[in-house]
Amino acid sequence: RGAWTRVQSASTAARLDLSGIFPPIATPFTTSEDVDYRRLEENLQKYAKIPFKGLVVQGSNGEYPYLTEEERVEVVQAVRSSLQPQKLLMAGSGCESTKATLQLTEKMAAVGADVVLVVTPCFYKGKMDSQALIQHFTKVADSSPVPVVLYSVPANTGLELPVDAVVQLSQHPNIAGLKDSGGDITRIGLIVHKTKGQDFQLLAGSAGFLMAAYSVGAVGGVCALANVLGQELCELERLCVSGRWEEARVLQQRLIEPNAAVTRKLGVPALKQAMEWFGFHGGACRSPLQPLTEAETQQLRRDFTSNGWL
Amino acid sequence: RGAWTRVQSASTAARLDLSGIFPPIATPFTTSEDVDYRRLEENLQKYAKIPFKGLVVQGSNGEYPYLTEEERVEVVQAVRSSLQPQKLLMAGSGCESTKATLQLTEKMAAVGADVVLVVTPCFYKGKMDSQALIQHFTKVADSSPVPVVLYSVPANTGLELPVDAVVQLSQHPNIAGLKDSGGDITRIGLIVHKTKGQDFQLLAGSAGFLMAAYSVGAVGGVCALANVLGQELCELERLCVSGRWEEARVLQQRLIEPNAAVTRKLGVPALKQAMEWFGFHGGACRSPLQPLTEAETQQLRRDFTSNGWL
Amino acid sequence: RGAWTRVQSASTAARLDLSGIFPPIATPFTTSEDVDYRRLEENLQKYAKIPFKGLVVQGSNGEYPYLTEEERVEVVQAVRSSLQPQKLLMAGSGCESTKATLQLTEKMAAVGADVVLVVTPCFYKGKMDSQALIQHFTKVADSSPVPVVLYSVPANTGLELPVDAVVQLSQHPNIAGLKDSGGDITRIGLIVHKTKGQDFQLLAGSAGFLMAAYSVGAVGGVCALANVLGQELCELERLCVSGRWEEARVLQQRLIEPNAAVTRKLGVPALKQAMEWFGFHGGACRSPLQPLTEAETQQLRRDFTSNGWL
Amino acid sequence: RGAWTRVQSASTAARLDLSGIFPPIATPFTTSEDVDYRRLEENLQKYAKIPFKGLVVQGSNGEYPYLTEEERVEVVQAVRSSLQPQKLLMAGSGCESTKATLQLTEKMAAVGADVVLVVTPCFYKGKMDSQALIQHFTKVADSSPVPVVLYSVPANTGLELPVDAVVQLSQHPNIAGLKDSGGDITRIGLIVHKTKGQDFQLLAGSAGFLMAAYSVGAVGGVCALANVLGQELCELERLCVSGRWEEARVLQQRLIEPNAAVTRKLGVPALKQAMEWFGFHGGACRSPLQPLTEAETQQLRRDFTSNGWL
Repeated sequence: RGAWTRVQSASTAARLDLSGIFPPIATPFTTSEDVDYRRLEENLQKYAKIPFKGLVVQGSNGEYPYLTEEERVEVVQAVRSSLQPQKLLMAGSGCESTKATLQLTEKMAAVGADVVLVVTPCFYKGKMDSQALIQHFTKVADSSPVPVVLYSVPANTGLELPVDAVVQLSQHPNIAGLKDSGGDITRIGLIVHKTKGQDFQLLAGSAGFLMAAYSVGAVGGVCALANVLGQELCELERLCVSGRWEEARVLQQRLIEPNAAVTRKLGVPALKQAMEWFGFHGGACRSPLQPLTEAETQQLRRDFTSNGWL
Repeated sequence: RGAWTRVQSASTAARLDLSGIFPPIATPFTTSEDVDYRRLEENLQKYAKIPFKGLVVQGSNGEYPYLTEEERVEVVQAVRSSLQPQKLLMAGSGCESTKATLQLTEKMAAVGADVVLVVTPCFYKGKMDSQALIQHFTKVADSSPVPVVLYSVPANTGLELPVDAVVQLSQHPNIAGLKDSGGDITRIGLIVHKTKGQDFQLLAGSAGFLMAAYSVGAVGGVCALANVLGQELCELERLCVSGRWEEARVLQQRLIEPNAAVTRKLGVPALKQAMEWFGFHGGACRSPLQPLTEAETQQLRRDFTSNGWL
Repeated sequence: RGAWTRVQSASTAARLDLSGIFPPIATPFTTSEDVDYRRLEENLQKYAKIPFKGLVVQGSNGEYPYLTEEERVEVVQAVRSSLQPQKLLMAGSGCESTKATLQLTEKMAAVGADVVLVVTPCFYKGKMDSQALIQHFTKVADSSPVPVVLYSVPANTGLELPVDAVVQLSQHPNIAGLKDSGGDITRIGLIVHKTKGQDFQLLAGSAGFLMAAYSVGAVGGVCALANVLGQELCELERLCVSGRWEEARVLQQRLIEPNAAVTRKLGVPALKQAMEWFGFHGGACRSPLQPLTEAETQQLRRDFTSNGWL
Repeated sequence: RGAWTRVQSASTAARLDLSGIFPPIATPFTTSEDVDYRRLEENLQKYAKIPFKGLVVQGSNGEYPYLTEEERVEVVQAVRSSLQPQKLLMAGSGCESTKATLQLTEKMAAVGADVVLVVTPCFYKGKMDSQALIQHFTKVADSSPVPVVLYSVPANTGLELPVDAVVQLSQHPNIAGLKDSGGDITRIGLIVHKTKGQDFQLLAGSAGFLMAAYSVGAVGGVCALANVLGQELCELERLCVSGRWEEARVLQQRLIEPNAAVTRKLGVPALKQAMEWFGFHGGACRSPLQPLTEAETQQLRRDFTSNGWL
């Protein structure tokens, strides 16, 4: 198991409580498409007032595939320097090859990530069966200085981390949980069930099914919409955790359309546009992501107004 | 709106409360592949002792596509003659053409169906957009003597009834609800949200996401697994309805694998095999459905034993 | 092998040469949605002047799922009484259950079908593996009085008849070939390769890949577009068969967009509209198929005009 | 159009003839997973004796997503130094962001690539519509010092470059063609048809449909199998180009199964294993790609032996 030892990891993982809401923060760019650290910092100051458990940096809607490796590390470092110490910093360190993932994971830990979020490799999807994925994540977890959260996001990768692989990986002392963005609630319930002997936590990967995920045993959520309606998502968390399901349901329902709009329907450009409406810096995306058309902007606005948010 | 009038339907629909659990009953056959009415009757007597809201006859796992039109009506008639009057009889009457659906709906009502379950036509799936489906279901609901429940089951039809079509159709006074077997909990929550001004009820179409569906506002479930573990599903209903979510979760989790086994993993032959183990008559399926292999039977058994049911 | 004997079938199959073009004829309806036999007859008289190998009656774009069983047989009978004796009548007799398929096959043969086209059952698609499909088609072929052509049409059924099943079934003396509408040319080439020891013929199921299918060894095509541009498809056949590939390519390319328009893009309503433009009776479809919108009609027209056909 | 001028590109593109066979070369690694330049060189010496049009370096089965940017450039440089000057070097330079693609394209040209192969960005697949892709490829082609070949490989990217985007991009003077690995022959025929006014060449992206692609107007192929059976693929090219379709068909059919085995069925590890059997250096893949199991190795061997290649 290389440098990492079972003892060390058990204690590491023991320290890690993932329960709560994490915004996977967007990356603001300047007009010349450079990372805009000033605007990022201003967003972080606003997020600091919201009772988030922590932040995800380099999640899918952080446009990480459009950042160089250097930029990926630099952004994490910038966030760390600003983030309150009691908040968790979860950094995306997944790459296609195991080797590159190992290296980036080390770098993320070195600049202050508390935990890394490692997406399934996906280019050779036909070969990414349970065995290949188990080997990949095991090697990463074996060598990672910080706990690892598995990340399954089929809308982007075309690949869902199989349940049997998750169950197997949940036994690794340095694997702390799974961010599941697929939203198949039957699968989520099953994973909670089959990992219940382990110190393994499930995070809902989108706000659309957050309450349902809590109902079947998730402990939190990494939700793009938290960039926009962070306070409200923390309120939804509180209602679920305290068993106030009727109130939770009313709030959850009002979040589905805004969430769909900033994720699968209109994507990162919509997330960034909505951030602007709610007092955050969103701005443009890197190419080839295109700005919203006028019609899309109106559709986005409708999805917020018709649910009483604008 | 043809023969059917708004007044009549409003009162009809008002009477209809779908909340509760419905087994979509399996159809037992003799060794010569004829409907085995004696065994069916014996199953019904056992189901009579379980607090089901009613029964679905000719749901997807009743092998209705393998029955002739005459058989479909005859089986409904047989069930009616045996079923306690206070239990609802929901009869599948969907066909590919609107015309055939209208006719079969009339026949089902004539032999005693309280409500009909109408599946989306699907052969020309590329043309079954919201407009075509709205027209189809509207014509059926206009002329049906009994309330209509929409039925979306993408695993069989390759087609999901779009949310906008459901919302539009929910306004029809003779459309009482939707059986959603797709299991996308975000969609289910959204449908509940967008139809809440209507007298429109949502039924979970599978036991795997029953609790999650309750959490976001469903009123019941049509669950293949209720043919086998009917008492337990009624218990899960009771826990959800009375807000005992912690206990519900524990029970729900133990039902996911057995449910998957008798539905998408191993299908109707597995459902019928499991029925045998639990004291019901399952028996063989009509061809081309094949009996389980020995390996499949063992896998099925494992999915029940590992969750403490056998 | 039941009533059917190897000897009988070998001779039956030996008589059957499927090489050439078959229009899968559309079914004209009256304004009250009844089959319009007069208009059907007029279409047949026009088709009689085109060097088709024969006709397919009750293919996917004959709206067979919208016909009753009686209508399906009646239409075949009507076509038989009009069709020149040297032309083949291939009748669709596939149903979901094996039993129903056996019965309809007998009826089709009794009213004069030379060969039956049997689609893959598909409702329980998760269970329709090679073994189930081999059993189904074997039983049908064993008892059919006329040769059987397998029919794989994934766009409608959500299911592709697996290559290994085709290869196995090709050895049956009463199975004459496969109509493959999926259009995967690698698969088509492989099937020709692996069935070359058998008396087994491959028909392209759409005009879009007709020439490519000839290039890898198909012997003909069942093409919706032949209802509209029948003469041109027979010309394409002639060019392919006589090795005039350069001329074939030019003609083939002009047919792709019109073909797509009347099949996957705009479906049967477009096929019927285009028939009207070219002097045939198309007319309306049965519900739930909707008439084309004005925008769709214009798009359809453009797909013909931009390729020089209108 | 930025730095690049129409005149320059017209002449550039005019020089480029893509007709012929290109192996997308595999990348041999040492046991420590470093690029094995010695073995690569030995492979190149063997390929030099085969009448390839050129080589593709960093195609999908070159494991380019597992190489660092530096390695990607270095491998191209190594190949250039060894490759006969009359052979084309096509280098994969596609990245997720437009900016990174521009930079890598420049580097590839600087180390001697004659043409670059640019894959569709795919992580945000829901947003990669025609407009986004047209903008991406246009910017790349505008600034690239060498001609650009578009690359559509849905099995890896989950995304097919839409026909309308291809047609629009075909008008760019610095875009020379398309490598289409999807294998939809109807689409390939349509693209040839709709780009025929342009200096735009279509390359089949796999050996399974090479002959069919030639029949509808492709000019060559980039085929993984050419790493193993390069001479035979050049022979297939010769037969197609000289109109000897009967002989071509026989050869094509024997190549389908071996090709499927080293691509979609068993992937890059199988390609590398087969290379070993035929006298080339394949070796291991980078993790997370796994070595073949014993059963897979046997299946691979069967796919070659049953077609007479081993």
